[in-house]
Amino acid sequence: RQQHRFHSPKACRLENLRAQEAARRIDAEAGCTEIWDQNNEEFQCAGVNMVRHTIRPRGLLLPGFTNAPKLIFVVQGTGIRGVAMPGCPETYQTDLRRSQSAGSFRDEHQKIRQFREGDLLVVPAGVSHWMYNRGQSDLILIVFVDTRNVANQIDPFARKFYLAGRPEMMERGAREAEGRSRSVSTGEKSGNMFSGFADEFLEEAFQVDSGLVRRLKGEDDERDRIVLVDEDFDVLMPERDDQERSRGRYIESESENGFEETVCTLRLKHNIGRSEHADVFNPRGGRISTANFHNLPFLRQVRLSAERGVLYSNAMSAPHYTVNAHTLAYATRGSARVQVVDNFGQSVFDGEVREGQVLMIPQNFVVMTRASDRGFEWIAFKTNDNAITNLLAGRVSQMRLLPVGVLSNMYRISREEAQRLKYGQPEMRVFSPGRSQGRRE
Amino acid sequence: RQQHRFHSPKACRLENLRAQEAARRIDAEAGCTEIWDQNNEEFQCAGVNMVRHTIRPRGLLLPGFTNAPKLIFVVQGTGIRGVAMPGCPETYQTDLRRSQSAGSFRDEHQKIRQFREGDLLVVPAGVSHWMYNRGQSDLILIVFVDTRNVANQIDPFARKFYLAGRPEMMERGAREAEGRSRSVSTGEKSGNMFSGFADEFLEEAFQVDSGLVRRLKGEDDERDRIVLVDEDFDVLMPERDDQERSRGRYIESESENGFEETVCTLRLKHNIGRSEHADVFNPRGGRISTANFHNLPFLRQVRLSAERGVLYSNAMSAPHYTVNAHTLAYATRGSARVQVVDNFGQSVFDGEVREGQVLMIPQNFVVMTRASDRGFEWIAFKTNDNAITNLLAGRVSQMRLLPVGVLSNMYRISREEAQRLKYGQPEMRVFSPGRSQGRRE
Amino acid sequence: RQQHRFHSPKACRLENLRAQEAARRIDAEAGCTEIWDQNNEEFQCAGVNMVRHTIRPRGLLLPGFTNAPKLIFVVQGTGIRGVAMPGCPETYQTDLRRSQSAGSFRDEHQKIRQFREGDLLVVPAGVSHWMYNRGQSDLILIVFVDTRNVANQIDPFARKFYLAGRPEMMERGAREAEGRSRSVSTGEKSGNMFSGFADEFLEEAFQVDSGLVRRLKGEDDERDRIVLVDEDFDVLMPERDDQERSRGRYIESESENGFEETVCTLRLKHNIGRSEHADVFNPRGGRISTANFHNLPFLRQVRLSAERGVLYSNAMSAPHYTVNAHTLAYATRGSARVQVVDNFGQSVFDGEVREGQVLMIPQNFVVMTRASDRGFEWIAFKTNDNAITNLLAGRVSQMRLLPVGVLSNMYRISREEAQRLKYGQPEMRVFSPGRSQGRRE
Repeated sequence: RQQHRFHSPKACRLENLRAQEAARRIDAEAGCTEIWDQNNEEFQCAGVNMVRHTIRPRGLLLPGFTNAPKLIFVVQGTGIRGVAMPGCPETYQTDLRRSQSAGSFRDEHQKIRQFREGDLLVVPAGVSHWMYNRGQSDLILIVFVDTRNVANQIDPFARKFYLAGRPEMMERGAREAEGRSRSVSTGEKSGNMFSGFADEFLEEAFQVDSGLVRRLKGEDDERDRIVLVDEDFDVLMPERDDQERSRGRYIESESENGFEETVCTLRLKHNIGRSEHADVFNPRGGRISTANFHNLPFLRQVRLSAERGVLYSNAMSAPHYTVNAHTLAYATRGSARVQVVDNFGQSVFDGEVREGQVLMIPQNFVVMTRASDRGFEWIAFKTNDNAITNLLAGRVSQMRLLPVGVLSNMYRISREEAQRLKYGQPEMRVFSPGRSQGRRE
Repeated sequence: RQQHRFHSPKACRLENLRAQEAARRIDAEAGCTEIWDQNNEEFQCAGVNMVRHTIRPRGLLLPGFTNAPKLIFVVQGTGIRGVAMPGCPETYQTDLRRSQSAGSFRDEHQKIRQFREGDLLVVPAGVSHWMYNRGQSDLILIVFVDTRNVANQIDPFARKFYLAGRPEMMERGAREAEGRSRSVSTGEKSGNMFSGFADEFLEEAFQVDSGLVRRLKGEDDERDRIVLVDEDFDVLMPERDDQERSRGRYIESESENGFEETVCTLRLKHNIGRSEHADVFNPRGGRISTANFHNLPFLRQVRLSAERGVLYSNAMSAPHYTVNAHTLAYATRGSARVQVVDNFGQSVFDGEVREGQVLMIPQNFVVMTRASDRGFEWIAFKTNDNAITNLLAGRVSQMRLLPVGVLSNMYRISREEAQRLKYGQPEMRVFSPGRSQGRRE
Repeated sequence: RQQHRFHSPKACRLENLRAQEAARRIDAEAGCTEIWDQNNEEFQCAGVNMVRHTIRPRGLLLPGFTNAPKLIFVVQGTGIRGVAMPGCPETYQTDLRRSQSAGSFRDEHQKIRQFREGDLLVVPAGVSHWMYNRGQSDLILIVFVDTRNVANQIDPFARKFYLAGRPEMMERGAREAEGRSRSVSTGEKSGNMFSGFADEFLEEAFQVDSGLVRRLKGEDDERDRIVLVDEDFDVLMPERDDQERSRGRYIESESENGFEETVCTLRLKHNIGRSEHADVFNPRGGRISTANFHNLPFLRQVRLSAERGVLYSNAMSAPHYTVNAHTLAYATRGSARVQVVDNFGQSVFDGEVREGQVLMIPQNFVVMTRASDRGFEWIAFKTNDNAITNLLAGRVSQMRLLPVGVLSNMYRISREEAQRLKYGQPEMRVFSPGRSQGRRE
């Protein structure tokens, strides 16, 4: 099934890739947000960017939507979130009997979705979502933003629209390109979507007074995009996993029509952190788990997938290329030596990638990775909901496909040497360490 | 279902939108054509343009095809048209017994399609169509041209190829960009598609003499693209609606294979002008009618939809944004105050939009509208066959989805204030006027 | 069914098309490769290019993959090829009993696919393939590369990644745009994909010694991309057509799951060279054969189609335009006078196209062709898996669709003249010669 994605309108400069650190950091009341530089050559070429949120306990990332779809990997922590899927009414109810205020109230709201470490979460373009750290430790999220995705109809820049607060602006490139006549520098607080409307319009639309409208507009709000919630917050959230139905405090109402049962109960997450889920497992080498449209069908809507990898000490990832997607990889732990080669046979990257760094590997470019002594773990996002990886060495590889006659003539080697090339490496995707260099016949 | 559409290759400047009037006007024998300036920033960004035809009674818009799909809204008038759907042979017949010439002749031709005020008509890319004003008053058509549609494989400019006549050139941008070596100014008459071929080629292809070839090429034709038909015209057209079958003058032949029955009988129009069809109706506020792929399946082929709106005196359209499409709105009557806000919370438009003006509202940008005393009516074209509108206030809104705990912390308000924000506005999409500003607790 | 394809991000200059010869030629050990200039205006606009391989007997085009899909027309010759379809294991076996080396060996490899003159072959993006000339005469292949295809996620340049050898670089444009800091000129040998990796990485990955790694990297390999195979080659290839199953030397193993039976047995070729297959046949005019998704379903994956045409001496191809695709036509024999007209009615091409030349005809542009005394044969590649051709004259034409009333008023002609325009030409797509100019009434 063909994917549709925009390539760069002009030639990409891909002869000199770099492992990138986050470029900017914005502190908020209950956490911080770091963003990579979307103007670097390879991110621009692929039309992608990365963001890292660190949310402290009881921290709430304010709701907002972006004009491009996102995948979020939960590096650490647990929490809950709400995703405003279109057409899905507030069919969930929470009784607020236990709050400290007098009386009780049944609040109706969207489905509250739980998540934990190792989960891959999907956020479609134009759909609002918020996230809350319900745990005791920091919640660390890696957010992959697919700007060149077909869902984005504007331009190759991500724009996040907040429903509340006054978050500091992150996206510099678009504003500079916009050439706003008023001189504006990054670091200036922007408003939220209500800030730009006339007060009387908002008073009439919401049927509230001007004091509440000022609150809506975030006047004097210095907390930025991650806020510390008040004491009442937890008692206002459902206790149990929203997957469970019970006669207790949390009641799911009947959906009103078949359509809601389809879209509104769609699964928007898949765990790829746990070793039991690995698609590839080598007890001496490591493991790889994939989330694609096969095991997370909603990925079809955003045309993205992800791969979580773990390489043990000195293990090697087989040389391979991705047929139909770019790869944006974030190192979550350890370090590795990585080599990437282009169509001219030139090395375009040869160096270390370590925890906290991001590397973009273009479609069809060939890559090999060898973990350091400490091992290496990563999350790689791919611009296709079914990314196809072609291996060049090993038990399932391009070499095995080729007849020995073709191999002999490709490399001017004997048939025996051709067989060695085909069958020498018995392992498949992850190679265990400890095989010495060069095995002589 | 994902839509596919190109975004702008470079950053869009969208901080200063404007309500646009038509920029150029070309007079023809039986009407005139006005075109908006496709080079203005926001139209370029979205890759769209608008054209308005005014066709006088007995006026015929010459057949032609464009390299981009179009939606046509019939603001006023009635008429007939022909659309040359590929693979659909001339299976309609009209007996020309009543013509003034001697003898009779059975003419075989395409299906003749009727239309009237309030109809939304679809014209796929590369497909030829003509239109005729059969009524007593002027026929006024608003044509939305979707240049950045995936059906257009050339460049972000609309090119209309005429089968006859010598219409004055409208599209200046493409020609300038083409940098024709001969100095050519807009206003010069271009030919039709036969003009550029050698006479002997055309004589041989059509098996006609050179005199008829000169007619084909439109030599000395000063009528431009809307011509006044001769007296015989009406008797050569079928009397009854082509939907009706009868033994009379108009006979529909049997289709030859199943395929023709599918494509060739496809409905290419949907009425959204009449109040009975409204999807949203507020007896004190107004109404909105939508044509999308649900009620006009052929829209799937062009990936477009439209919304016809009517706001009564001082009524308000709920603050909302479109998740997955740009909007190009044309005001057909009255006026309104409109505010549009971007992702930085900045107002990018705050002013009046009145009859005859066009406003582009980018994907995800938030918009509010309040009709003036005179009321406000519009036709809005959207770049998605199923445009999703997310409302921010009212009975079905993003506010209702959010738990009161989240709302309280978003805006630093009490739970009671959060409930007021959620439930204060009981109306849904169109808000009736007359509720005074600010309702104090 | 809508196609998805990128149009040019900026205006195309299409007022002056040219019939193009190959621009560069690279000689190899057993053949040569000629490439057209992808930087010429019209190829850039459409995002396409053409390559011609001439492979001598016993010549092997080294395996490699490109970031864009390709269609290959076999102008002359026969051969075999391998296509590394993803997910298709090496389920074919060849017993190497008859080789001159001692002992026997059962080699497992991909399906070996045969092809012959007149075949249209498909190569998906990112999928490796090799080709071998098994015949006595030269193998001549025309390769159409669809750079602006949605499968290409990088930029509007084709990049071919070779698995072996050190082929001279062909694609100048991308390298210049990349602005490599080392001064590099076209003509420099590039490596293959293994050249850029560290030796020890490759030794470990393949479990081979450094000598074999040097062979892998193509050190001292001056043969370029088409190599002359050694004597043993033929005995290492299966004898019979891989479609046949037999108890002899060539055994197809059972596929392991249903999926392999679907993708891995897909037909990737269709013959359009033989006259028995023609979709259009005029015994005095010529014939046209089409390969599209109807008769070669795999074309759906690459969204391309092709048309093979033969015009006899002085025959004419009806004036027509393609609704939904660009056309890149290569003349395989003879010559013709061709005229192409744009939307302004201007002639953008009026000249001879002869054997070996390529002409790009943009979507919607109108074209007429008349063969010279020698006749004219071509292969035309189209950027849509179901290219729709609308004819302007003849038995199935736009003229026939129009009612005589509309025609009379379009051209200011009588009803009789309108009927002549509609019915004068009884032939359909290919017009036989010999009808004199102008037939007077």
